[in-house]
Amino acid sequence: MARPTIDHRSAEFSRLGLEVLDGLKEVFKTSGSIVIFPASGTGAWEAALVNTLSPGDKVLMFETGHFATLWREMAVKLGLDVQFVEGDWRHGVDSKVVESALSEDARRQIKAVMVVHNETSTGVTSRVANVRKVMDRAKHPALLMVDTISSLASIDYHHDEWGVDVTVAGSQKGLMLPPGLSFNAISEKALASAKSARLSKSYWDWQPMLAANRTGFFPYTPGTNLLYGLREALHMLREEGMDNVFARHDRHAEATRRAVQAWQLEVLCLNPQEYSSSLTAVLMPTSHNADELRKVILDQFNMSLGSGLAKLQGKVFRIGHLGDFNDLMLAGTLSGVEMGLALAGVPHAKGGVAAALDHLTQCRQQSQRYRSLMRTVSRSDVAQACRD
Amino acid sequence: MARPTIDHRSAEFSRLGLEVLDGLKEVFKTSGSIVIFPASGTGAWEAALVNTLSPGDKVLMFETGHFATLWREMAVKLGLDVQFVEGDWRHGVDSKVVESALSEDARRQIKAVMVVHNETSTGVTSRVANVRKVMDRAKHPALLMVDTISSLASIDYHHDEWGVDVTVAGSQKGLMLPPGLSFNAISEKALASAKSARLSKSYWDWQPMLAANRTGFFPYTPGTNLLYGLREALHMLREEGMDNVFARHDRHAEATRRAVQAWQLEVLCLNPQEYSSSLTAVLMPTSHNADELRKVILDQFNMSLGSGLAKLQGKVFRIGHLGDFNDLMLAGTLSGVEMGLALAGVPHAKGGVAAALDHLTQCRQQSQRYRSLMRTVSRSDVAQACRD
Amino acid sequence: MARPTIDHRSAEFSRLGLEVLDGLKEVFKTSGSIVIFPASGTGAWEAALVNTLSPGDKVLMFETGHFATLWREMAVKLGLDVQFVEGDWRHGVDSKVVESALSEDARRQIKAVMVVHNETSTGVTSRVANVRKVMDRAKHPALLMVDTISSLASIDYHHDEWGVDVTVAGSQKGLMLPPGLSFNAISEKALASAKSARLSKSYWDWQPMLAANRTGFFPYTPGTNLLYGLREALHMLREEGMDNVFARHDRHAEATRRAVQAWQLEVLCLNPQEYSSSLTAVLMPTSHNADELRKVILDQFNMSLGSGLAKLQGKVFRIGHLGDFNDLMLAGTLSGVEMGLALAGVPHAKGGVAAALDHLTQCRQQSQRYRSLMRTVSRSDVAQACRD
Amino acid sequence: MARPTIDHRSAEFSRLGLEVLDGLKEVFKTSGSIVIFPASGTGAWEAALVNTLSPGDKVLMFETGHFATLWREMAVKLGLDVQFVEGDWRHGVDSKVVESALSEDARRQIKAVMVVHNETSTGVTSRVANVRKVMDRAKHPALLMVDTISSLASIDYHHDEWGVDVTVAGSQKGLMLPPGLSFNAISEKALASAKSARLSKSYWDWQPMLAANRTGFFPYTPGTNLLYGLREALHMLREEGMDNVFARHDRHAEATRRAVQAWQLEVLCLNPQEYSSSLTAVLMPTSHNADELRKVILDQFNMSLGSGLAKLQGKVFRIGHLGDFNDLMLAGTLSGVEMGLALAGVPHAKGGVAAALDHLTQCRQQSQRYRSLMRTVSRSDVAQACRD
Repeated sequence: MARPTIDHRSAEFSRLGLEVLDGLKEVFKTSGSIVIFPASGTGAWEAALVNTLSPGDKVLMFETGHFATLWREMAVKLGLDVQFVEGDWRHGVDSKVVESALSEDARRQIKAVMVVHNETSTGVTSRVANVRKVMDRAKHPALLMVDTISSLASIDYHHDEWGVDVTVAGSQKGLMLPPGLSFNAISEKALASAKSARLSKSYWDWQPMLAANRTGFFPYTPGTNLLYGLREALHMLREEGMDNVFARHDRHAEATRRAVQAWQLEVLCLNPQEYSSSLTAVLMPTSHNADELRKVILDQFNMSLGSGLAKLQGKVFRIGHLGDFNDLMLAGTLSGVEMGLALAGVPHAKGGVAAALDHLTQCRQQSQRYRSLMRTVSRSDVAQACRD
Repeated sequence: MARPTIDHRSAEFSRLGLEVLDGLKEVFKTSGSIVIFPASGTGAWEAALVNTLSPGDKVLMFETGHFATLWREMAVKLGLDVQFVEGDWRHGVDSKVVESALSEDARRQIKAVMVVHNETSTGVTSRVANVRKVMDRAKHPALLMVDTISSLASIDYHHDEWGVDVTVAGSQKGLMLPPGLSFNAISEKALASAKSARLSKSYWDWQPMLAANRTGFFPYTPGTNLLYGLREALHMLREEGMDNVFARHDRHAEATRRAVQAWQLEVLCLNPQEYSSSLTAVLMPTSHNADELRKVILDQFNMSLGSGLAKLQGKVFRIGHLGDFNDLMLAGTLSGVEMGLALAGVPHAKGGVAAALDHLTQCRQQSQRYRSLMRTVSRSDVAQACRD
Repeated sequence: MARPTIDHRSAEFSRLGLEVLDGLKEVFKTSGSIVIFPASGTGAWEAALVNTLSPGDKVLMFETGHFATLWREMAVKLGLDVQFVEGDWRHGVDSKVVESALSEDARRQIKAVMVVHNETSTGVTSRVANVRKVMDRAKHPALLMVDTISSLASIDYHHDEWGVDVTVAGSQKGLMLPPGLSFNAISEKALASAKSARLSKSYWDWQPMLAANRTGFFPYTPGTNLLYGLREALHMLREEGMDNVFARHDRHAEATRRAVQAWQLEVLCLNPQEYSSSLTAVLMPTSHNADELRKVILDQFNMSLGSGLAKLQGKVFRIGHLGDFNDLMLAGTLSGVEMGLALAGVPHAKGGVAAALDHLTQCRQQSQRYRSLMRTVSRSDVAQACRD
Repeated sequence: MARPTIDHRSAEFSRLGLEVLDGLKEVFKTSGSIVIFPASGTGAWEAALVNTLSPGDKVLMFETGHFATLWREMAVKLGLDVQFVEGDWRHGVDSKVVESALSEDARRQIKAVMVVHNETSTGVTSRVANVRKVMDRAKHPALLMVDTISSLASIDYHHDEWGVDVTVAGSQKGLMLPPGLSFNAISEKALASAKSARLSKSYWDWQPMLAANRTGFFPYTPGTNLLYGLREALHMLREEGMDNVFARHDRHAEATRRAVQAWQLEVLCLNPQEYSSSLTAVLMPTSHNADELRKVILDQFNMSLGSGLAKLQGKVFRIGHLGDFNDLMLAGTLSGVEMGLALAGVPHAKGGVAAALDHLTQCRQQSQRYRSLMRTVSRSDVAQACRD
């Protein structure tokens, strides 16, 4: 046709496919296989399950929040036997609990341990490396599957080093794209499991995907336009440097928490070692409804905050600080919240934005000091400065 | 966040959801339910199967081309028992064959009849109404499922009137969007079947989708940006008028066939009643390879023609004339083919473009005559003129 | 051509021309003529002069800042005899000075009084209505010409009511477009002067422009793409309501000044009645260079502040708050300045952003009170609330 | 401001300025000075005159068409004494006439010879090199000024080699941008003339422009967005190679003329050595109105052809084939004309498109032969092939 088309059977497209599949490896920190589905993140959850498990298989899951609960519902629907560890939605996965569950599983019936790395509904980040450690200590053969939908490319993550078997991710958070692509990073062990897995599958089947990917193609129509966007996003991440990207998210998260503290409000996440760097959920004072606050802020400032999901409905609001986000956007966001609190009549102290600015300024100052000390201008100065 | 975001839990998004779900009904010509998956068309194939069928169910399918063959492979993978009627890839579904297969099925084991309306690999359009007719005549209770991925919004289609139970469609052809959305239109009968269907499903499950859709929402992250595009596409189709859209495709297809005839080449589709209006597959003279021709045309004119798929590889090239396409774009396309045939040394007669222009001109002239006769300027003049 | 083109001789383009010429009248608040040049604002300065004056004509101009000085240079270049009233760049035009100059001009040699409404280099807004008043009182026949390049559609302006003869404006500030269009609004009296004006002109000549404009056309190639953008901009202004646009700029300017005060820095403009609502120039503490601060802010936060121009170089920085700008963008901007002051080691007090947020919040609260008192939700609530 | 802005006083902008000013030299083929005005092409006409001439100066101009006539009107308005050589709008500048005019000018009163290189209204290209030759032979000191608004970057042009003193150009044709930028390329001799030129000027004054340009800046607000576009356009031209760009235009122009001949219509331009490669004006058969044909084509095919201007109104239509245009777009364009001729009832023979396709095909074939002969794949193969 005379029109510019994106022909997904062309040589040009094959080059694009190879390029993005390769580029994603840096992001997942893996030298293994990655597949891309034209689907939102929920599809990649399903792919992780149906490719590795069989009907009736037992899996160990943790109620860290709304999305962990939804993943469990999916597992049940697909006919898996879910051992679901209850939680208070304010903590991540407790590796001691994992350890005891695995050691109790003398007959090695648990086929997979499934963790949501960063719970979008709560702003709690589970420590995956710790989970791996106890699995190793228990010498348990279960697969480790991790959902990084709201953490990949925002919070440091190591598919290979942490011994993850299937990592699940999506396009619409740290990769700064619209929803519509989702991913599985796959270990050799997961690939081996796939050979005997008997859950039925076709769209999500890794085998034809991996076969076609070898030449940069896809077994059915891929999300062509988003793949071009993905190439651009990978380029942006590489430009900034992954370490700097993580440091930026850490800095914004800490500034946000300082604002919350100054407002005399409470961060939902109770364990500082589990604070999320991509979003912060804030508890409303009792007898105030978070959704009313959110409506005031939307109406007055045209800014949409995340709502409390499921059992947190009305009880928290969520401040996102991930993706293509900078210091001044964060300042604008926190300003909208601070003014909204006043306008909605929510009891709070002023000074949240000021506290956040103090932190951001200090990070920059530390970085400046480093530079003059070292006389070496490395790209990750700011990163280092604020992590110490 | 301070950035413009598309919040898929907002009231604004709910209005969008309701609007597109409603607007799609005009396109499928149904008053029943439609669901939208963030997935490419292959996903909607799977959704049709897993929501209505159980492991081991027998289905009747037809080898009309490459995509029908892929759909059959999917059905086999998902554990269905496929009765596959072989074909020559140059004809559509033969309703006589359907009739005899159904009447032989005395124990009513066939649970579904599955038809690809328009075969993208061959340019053959099966007559769905005829299939319905023989199913009715046979009083067979099987569901009728139809793939309209490359026909919806290009070729006239009637989900309700033709008694289709599940229609499968995608965003990237007649709806003029990138790939990434796919659809099921669902009859009451199919919804009833869904209650007892035992193929496993989660992402593709109609029930939570239909439940959330009632308020314009989705059970998991939808393809937000494409849904905005869909609203625009539906608006464009309504502006032009569906009848005019169909007439335009008919006109372009006929002009293309006249060009092919003038070139003394052969249209792959053997039955004029089954000519596709959205694309035309053209047979290469024996001892010439279609892919070499395609390469010449791509190199010289930066125009990408469709390739022969699977057993047609190298034997045909395909000219698409669907979506947001006008007379002069068609003329440019056919000019590229005609010059390409000469440059690639493919034996042919000149005059294809000229023959196409003659047809397009005649359509316009007939339409002008109609107008002056009738003194009524109706939007579908051109449509009518060229169909008579 | 087969490509989509903007044909500036088509009927469609003529409709666009008439629509924008008409829509601009609301913005200038005039029922008279407006012309559009494909040129930046400097061109519209020249047009104002060459259409109304003759070589050697005397004009009265005021040194309110850098742009007033540039306009004077142009007048001198074009052969006019400029009486230039010196100024300190911290005040607007003093109407008493105008009055005495005009009363001294017994022989009525002054042909035009030329005022820059809002000095982009200083953030000082001259009170045009007062100038008109003293011209009337002096019964002086001089034309009144006003540059509104950085005020139109941001700060209230009345071409007709204030008896302005030529208003000069551009596309790139309040109209939210790229530079490339500039405007003259023209009184009947100015049109009359044009008949005898002898400065040479061709491109800037009003006559062929006004003649062609009657049918929506232009005497030479217009800035086609920007005219489409202008239609959109006029639509946005109408949507928000001009009074609300002005109130928004007033609110942002006051919030900015409160930040400056809290920082214990000084606003360049000395007269509160002349504070600009579209930008604020801030004096640096002596012995600190504004350009070093600007560099720090650009490097650290990728935000570009306006520099001190000409004799203010290094002595001020300028904060713009005009055009398509909202409360949270202002908060982000002021946050960047506050952090920048700290990082650059500029002596200042903290709390500027907090003071700005207080003001913005109070404006919203007053507006909420109005609403519940009045039970009438008028679009200009916020406007009214914050002006009282 | 927190928003992405294009700050035309920033270091980044200065780099852009230097880059485009430098890149333009390749396009004008000059090592001398070039200035860029934020204005449409008519402004660059004015700049050429006011910078080099004084009131009452005599200039020699030629009635080659509508735009040459407009330029003369401008010269008269600005107070120049124009010696206007009448023409029939079907020929370019006759260098014999130039020669005799100059030799008659014993007192060297003619200060400039002004030529429109490519007349957009007629499709006639004057041979500037020949004009230069006779000027040299006459040893006449007049400046040579050339309008290349519709030829630059489409038709081969040599500012330095042809000894042009001021070349006038615009953004909206061969440079593939919207209107809004215009250019003067300036010889040393023209710069010298500028010192004594007494026509009044300010916006168009070369001196402050050249002074600011030295560091990549501009003396007043430039057309920022278009300058970014210009960088991209220069990049595209360099990618394709200027010789290939010219060859493409030559090929499309010849193909168009073959179509016109096949239709048994007449090209307006009478001298084959003066055929324009950027557009072709076609004479309508007497008693048929070109504007009626244009209306039919616009209504039926949404394609806008150029109209006959001034004394050619209704008598010609103009087919543009310049800028970012390829073989298939040309085929689509000519198809629209051929069908339009039939629909509008204009007497003509069929076969125009076919004749054009024959020519385009032959060019490609010759190029293929060259390649296999030479075994050297040079980028200008097609160019060479079709020029021989």
